[in-house]
Amino acid sequence: MIKPRTPAGVLELLPPDQIAFQRMLDVIRRNFERFGFLPVETPVMELSEVLLTKSGGETERQVYFAQSTGALEKAADGLPELALRFDLTVPLARYVAEHEHDLAFPFRRYQMQRVYRGERQQRGRFREFYQCDIDVIGKDALSVRFDAELPATIHAVFSELAIGAFTIHLNNRKLMRGFFEREGVADPELQALVLREVDKLDKRGTAAVRETLTGEGFGLRSDVVDRILAFVEIRSTSHADAIGTLDRLVAEGDVNASLATGAAELREVLELVRAMGVPESSYALNLSIARGLDYYTGTVYETTLDDYPQIGSICSGGRYENLASHYTKSKLPGVGISIGLTRLFWQLREAGLLGRVESTVQVLVTQMDAAHLPHCLAVASELRHAGFNTEVVMEASKIAKQFRYADRSGIRFVVVLGDDEIAGNTVTVKDLRREDQFQVGRAELASTLRVELAQPLVRT
Amino acid sequence: MIKPRTPAGVLELLPPDQIAFQRMLDVIRRNFERFGFLPVETPVMELSEVLLTKSGGETERQVYFAQSTGALEKAADGLPELALRFDLTVPLARYVAEHEHDLAFPFRRYQMQRVYRGERQQRGRFREFYQCDIDVIGKDALSVRFDAELPATIHAVFSELAIGAFTIHLNNRKLMRGFFEREGVADPELQALVLREVDKLDKRGTAAVRETLTGEGFGLRSDVVDRILAFVEIRSTSHADAIGTLDRLVAEGDVNASLATGAAELREVLELVRAMGVPESSYALNLSIARGLDYYTGTVYETTLDDYPQIGSICSGGRYENLASHYTKSKLPGVGISIGLTRLFWQLREAGLLGRVESTVQVLVTQMDAAHLPHCLAVASELRHAGFNTEVVMEASKIAKQFRYADRSGIRFVVVLGDDEIAGNTVTVKDLRREDQFQVGRAELASTLRVELAQPLVRT
Repeated sequence: MIKPRTPAGVLELLPPDQIAFQRMLDVIRRNFERFGFLPVETPVMELSEVLLTKSGGETERQVYFAQSTGALEKAADGLPELALRFDLTVPLARYVAEHEHDLAFPFRRYQMQRVYRGERQQRGRFREFYQCDIDVIGKDALSVRFDAELPATIHAVFSELAIGAFTIHLNNRKLMRGFFEREGVADPELQALVLREVDKLDKRGTAAVRETLTGEGFGLRSDVVDRILAFVEIRSTSHADAIGTLDRLVAEGDVNASLATGAAELREVLELVRAMGVPESSYALNLSIARGLDYYTGTVYETTLDDYPQIGSICSGGRYENLASHYTKSKLPGVGISIGLTRLFWQLREAGLLGRVESTVQVLVTQMDAAHLPHCLAVASELRHAGFNTEVVMEASKIAKQFRYADRSGIRFVVVLGDDEIAGNTVTVKDLRREDQFQVGRAELASTLRVELAQPLVRT
Repeated sequence: MIKPRTPAGVLELLPPDQIAFQRMLDVIRRNFERFGFLPVETPVMELSEVLLTKSGGETERQVYFAQSTGALEKAADGLPELALRFDLTVPLARYVAEHEHDLAFPFRRYQMQRVYRGERQQRGRFREFYQCDIDVIGKDALSVRFDAELPATIHAVFSELAIGAFTIHLNNRKLMRGFFEREGVADPELQALVLREVDKLDKRGTAAVRETLTGEGFGLRSDVVDRILAFVEIRSTSHADAIGTLDRLVAEGDVNASLATGAAELREVLELVRAMGVPESSYALNLSIARGLDYYTGTVYETTLDDYPQIGSICSGGRYENLASHYTKSKLPGVGISIGLTRLFWQLREAGLLGRVESTVQVLVTQMDAAHLPHCLAVASELRHAGFNTEVVMEASKIAKQFRYADRSGIRFVVVLGDDEIAGNTVTVKDLRREDQFQVGRAELASTLRVELAQPLVRT
């Protein structure tokens, strides 16, 4: 006998949680499609040579390789031929470069699949997890206007997910770079180091960070450090405040090209986000957002839950210069954003925010007597044809047990077909949500349930 | 520069095909849920020790193992710790045994995920492919009635997939075993060998198979071979014919327990399939269906497309005695059926049966002038709120080019917002499916499109 168990670092769910998870996937997909993104799926296994174009790096150390039994026996030197994807961005680059001549640009794609990383074993760290990505890829060029569509899509997703108030934070790498240049911190590597220190503000406090930046290692002037700390603390409180802040930044001192472009891009993105109907309470200018400094070159995004800031960013991304330089000479600029759904789901569950989930099964047709089964099956067929997810009790047990099963499983309607009901061609329905019971003609059953479902659940 | 390409044996799709594939997945899932099956997903990677409980066998030779970079370096002897699932049945066994005390039995689950097999490279053979499975698992016992629910579910799936007429073939391993026993072929291994010869009827012809079975190796009596060949050729032509055939089989000669039980089970399954509203043209008794002889013990199923018999079975399964004997002492009998969707999709596409696919995008809002963009975005927001998947042209190009894009992408409605439309608060809509154009007030746009969508497409 072997102990049945999963490997460490995977999240396997029981049906009620799987239903909740699937509903989140459905909401995300529906909204991605609502905004005109097209579906793509790529294989889990890619050729190692193709997947691992950049050598070294944390990600590559975490890669899983795949080998069939035959390959295992032969494998002597070198990397295995196949590797599992560790994100959806490299497969997107490979996909767009491979199918370049069959795609229409700007290419808007969504992809919702699992990715694999050999993470250190740790609570809340997953080795297999869902990413839900949208990207728009241009050929040669891509207007900054597209940068506004992603926050609008994300706003629609999180509004429908209904997991509480959230804020999409926007910044622009050009604006940051231009600001640092103005302050005499022109070297990008130095900027990165300064930002890394700034990132420790929460942990170390302002005084300690200031000391580091003015100290021997960095040697920045005190007034420069003041302005840097003031800059990264900027959060807009409204749309008008965001626009005003950008205006002031440009008016305040010397304006270099990078600063001017960054501010203009951010302003255009913010205006279009508003034009797309995103309420101003859901987005903000946040000049501390930097994201991967070697990758993003323009707009950057993070998203936080207002009431659960400790969860951190639940959806991040930004604008990049060239998606697939390893695979094609074509210049493919893009902008993308990603939801790490497995981790988000796990965090929501830990925080007790999932709530009670109704089953995918909407109706349970009970069975009082084996002789009734053909009748039960016929009623179930009618319900299914009317669009109701219906389960039939195939083996008669005590009726109380059948009700208990429905209640525990989160099935809302229980249909009872006793001798009286069958003789009168009626059914008795118990609504477990409303704790209500009624009798209805068999022909009116589906339409009655539809009305019940459409009514709000508040009891009077 | 690295050539962007996928490994051999995977099916990667361009967006129009991916949309068609996704619609098939959606139809399958919707119908699985309609019949009360609950969703389960399991990790791609399982512990090798847990996954590979049976040693040897074709399947195990095809297994992919996974190793992170760190593990690769250490791996010296023995199998890698992780392996990719090669089907959804072993993971189901592990899942049910692991979560036995948290599940309600009979446990009805569906699972639609990719599986991995190191198949020989061959056209139409995939190393990564979707399986869409439903199973009902009982604890200690499971009524044969559940065996009727699977064909009813499969009937609903393939009816809605609308890929042509199909037949679900049913047989019962007990009936077969009993029949062979009656004919003096009592050894199960000999039965298996005889069935393997019988399986060659199409290829070798009746005379050659008869010669083998009566010849030295098998040494069966000529009248026995006649009755075996007659038996496996039995296909019912109607429900009544199927029941009549079972009656005759039982009446015809000595009836052993296995034959009697098998016939009774098949009869009950057929009667319930009918009671669930499956038309008798969609199912048949087919006494040649055997399936995996070492695994299935009762009802067995195969499904074929009536007009494309050469595609073979597109959905198969059956009843098994005990799902998870490797993992638990509990007896868990079950019945299941599986659609190999990747292969089916590929075959339908090869046969030209996919047809032209409409985009997931339903409306394209064009842009005549950059100054119109906020207006375009507002109209798009209204459409999205009304439930339409809407794409906005974010960068103005020639209007003809925008129409061409919609047409090639399979987007049905194109919304035009020129100066006149904006001034009059109207929109011009071109319906590319109907080749029709009309103007409508902006406030009526969504309701008008809804009416258009609901109308049949036949042009008068």
